[in-house]
Amino acid sequence: MPELKIEVIPEGTVIDHIPAGKWPKVVEILRLTKPNGGTLLIASNVPSKKLGRKDIVKVEGRYLSEEEVNKIALIAPNATVNIVKDYKIVEKFKVEIPDEIVGILTCPNPNCVSNHEHVLPKFHVESREPLKLRCHYCERTVEGDEILGNL
Amino acid sequence: MPELKIEVIPEGTVIDHIPAGKWPKVVEILRLTKPNGGTLLIASNVPSKKLGRKDIVKVEGRYLSEEEVNKIALIAPNATVNIVKDYKIVEKFKVEIPDEIVGILTCPNPNCVSNHEHVLPKFHVESREPLKLRCHYCERTVEGDEILGNL
Repeated sequence: MPELKIEVIPEGTVIDHIPAGKWPKVVEILRLTKPNGGTLLIASNVPSKKLGRKDIVKVEGRYLSEEEVNKIALIAPNATVNIVKDYKIVEKFKVEIPDEIVGILTCPNPNCVSNHEHVLPKFHVESREPLKLRCHYCERTVEGDEILGNL
Repeated sequence: MPELKIEVIPEGTVIDHIPAGKWPKVVEILRLTKPNGGTLLIASNVPSKKLGRKDIVKVEGRYLSEEEVNKIALIAPNATVNIVKDYKIVEKFKVEIPDEIVGILTCPNPNCVSNHEHVLPKFHVESREPLKLRCHYCERTVEGDEILGNL
């Protein structure tokens, strides 16, 4: 069969160790459904020593903002981000969930002040595994799919 | 950089020659955002001799129904479908837009009888390039993004 040759991307970002099946969330966070001119490679449910199965997303010609990395951390807390330039990895880091999550997740409580006033939403991390966050303003806790749904 | 090794899928379907950027529609038609237990590989905007740039989708352990192939034909009229079994291509065919499209596209005319009675929607192909369809019941023509939006 004609093998799908996955070219090494000349420059861009490789997000590795995404939990299996979570690639659509990464695509959504990075808005990758619209082509950016470069190649996009997605491999889902591939064997992984660390995770059993994992997803990988490679995006040519694209680098991530801190906000994008923090969003990815919320859905893929063990993800690794590789920055590629001139065919080489020039930087590699694990995503990290910051102790305070400011401005990237909206509070699911419709009465929370952060949904009504000009206030950036802010959450404190109560637990990392499983991930559980508490709204700084209304103290509502958010976990699981509710986190994904409010990113 | 660590190369993303794209394993040859042991069995399943390879959809090749999808127009660049249209992979999200193929994923939607085949409902590939939920893992099926096998590996999923998506390559978008890769160089192609025929198309300049193209998308490829490989799905392990999955075969397509006639309805799925016909839906793909509407968004990727030059796509090739390769059926893989035991690491070999056992069948290869080009998708084809049938002369009549029955039951896979709903009519965008809200007053069309096919949206109200127990009648399968039916369209006749008026033109293939660009694709233009005419509703059998209300004679409304459908083309472009309207086709994608009503699949």
